[in-house]
Amino acid sequence: MNVFIIGIGLIGGSYARDIRQIRPGCRIFGIDADPEHLQQALSMDLIDEAATYGDLVKADLVLVSIPVDALVRELPVILDSIGEQTLVLDAGSTKNLVCKAVEDHDNRRNFLACHPIAGTEFSGPSAAISGLYQGKTNIICEVEKTAFKLQERALDLFRDLGMRIRYMNPDAHDKHIAYVSHLSHISSFMLGKTVIEKEKNERDIFDMAGSGFESTVRLAKSSPAMWTPIFRQNKEYVLEILNEYIANLEGFKAQMLADDFDGIYREMDNTNKIREILDGIPLNKVK
Amino acid sequence: MNVFIIGIGLIGGSYARDIRQIRPGCRIFGIDADPEHLQQALSMDLIDEAATYGDLVKADLVLVSIPVDALVRELPVILDSIGEQTLVLDAGSTKNLVCKAVEDHDNRRNFLACHPIAGTEFSGPSAAISGLYQGKTNIICEVEKTAFKLQERALDLFRDLGMRIRYMNPDAHDKHIAYVSHLSHISSFMLGKTVIEKEKNERDIFDMAGSGFESTVRLAKSSPAMWTPIFRQNKEYVLEILNEYIANLEGFKAQMLADDFDGIYREMDNTNKIREILDGIPLNKVK
Repeated sequence: MNVFIIGIGLIGGSYARDIRQIRPGCRIFGIDADPEHLQQALSMDLIDEAATYGDLVKADLVLVSIPVDALVRELPVILDSIGEQTLVLDAGSTKNLVCKAVEDHDNRRNFLACHPIAGTEFSGPSAAISGLYQGKTNIICEVEKTAFKLQERALDLFRDLGMRIRYMNPDAHDKHIAYVSHLSHISSFMLGKTVIEKEKNERDIFDMAGSGFESTVRLAKSSPAMWTPIFRQNKEYVLEILNEYIANLEGFKAQMLADDFDGIYREMDNTNKIREILDGIPLNKVK
Repeated sequence: MNVFIIGIGLIGGSYARDIRQIRPGCRIFGIDADPEHLQQALSMDLIDEAATYGDLVKADLVLVSIPVDALVRELPVILDSIGEQTLVLDAGSTKNLVCKAVEDHDNRRNFLACHPIAGTEFSGPSAAISGLYQGKTNIICEVEKTAFKLQERALDLFRDLGMRIRYMNPDAHDKHIAYVSHLSHISSFMLGKTVIEKEKNERDIFDMAGSGFESTVRLAKSSPAMWTPIFRQNKEYVLEILNEYIANLEGFKAQMLADDFDGIYREMDNTNKIREILDGIPLNKVK
């Protein structure tokens, strides 16, 4: 089995680690725009050899894990280059534009649009970890547009990786993911920015910050190269939820200014409901 | 050694667990406004017996770990009730009003104002954990107002608990802690609120939320009874930093609306600096 990973970073590299375990005898080829990452992936044995698009014709499986701006641009070219029985999967955090980019492609049926809800704030081949996908949700969009046999091959892979599957349309995906992922990143980046600006003396942060600050600001370590195109592609839904968030912060501020601390208590008490919701997140139990 | 813990929740109960280890032979007394918590603390062996303010006269050490509104009200009464050699420590997340509440008290020299930067989003005796204070920072305010012998007793205790000490004045404490703790809680509570409001169907959150959302929204599980009085007491500094945060979010929104994604990239790239700052948080390494 020939597996090609296009973009050997956290996501692609973690796929490589697990696929080597669950598909013994597979040969893993790597393609990456960054020669240093490719070299690193080779020396870490994430991949067996470096390859180019010219080799894709012999691929059984192609995993495309690159920033979503590159994804929209490259996916049609990748589909041009594959063999008849090649399955192509992506891992993009947006789905509307990705699906749109290949909707009329002759090889559309070789592609399955996926978003594995998995990752960390780190990036690059060195961030790849084993078991990243175990117990995580993989959101599949427009499943009906993929050849049935290739759907089966993908589902076998995801089952062996330990993933749960959920089917959505691309627009619903982009809307909900703006709420539960993209907004979290903005909130975290702006929190980091606010505190860095205020704290000229970093020792104050160093000494006084506890696990609460660390937790809320963790995502501010994320890669701008990955996140800028996500915000660009999902602009409409991100702006919608960002507006709601700012309005809620303004509401909190107004309550503080009015000394309405009973109201603030009630807000927080209502929001404590998030406990039960979070307890439902499977990742919770994995960590 | 007679140790009294007033308020047997996460903070007081965790002190009880560790003090039992590092001070063998000590006897731990519990005082709590909630009879159920007191009963629970007894049955969990966090405390040896329930007590009242009338017993404080025989205390060597009194740890007051109650919400900051109760703290400001009760601390003078507690200082009225203690013996001549009793050391009283608090654990309040604000320091200005707490120190003010006892500044003219006859027994001011028996009190050391402390804020251990430690905790979780949970509360009550069942949330108490061993080793909570290991490697954490304890901020001590107005140390010069505490009797030298009692300072020593406190520092011995904190050393044996594995804590690092930092001295600050109450106002600097309240200002910086608004930046690195209080704002994180507001950001998290409002994030939780925003997403709960938008997601009528909780299954969507359950399935799509990953570790990023979980991390940024974790503090929204925190106790409103603890946090409402903190926001009230630290209103001025909390509003100051909340304004900056909202302004930064508005700035991000304006960049999105103007399609200034190069600017957004630069913002995130600058904020990535938080990596090095967070790497300095000792807790990071403990978890």
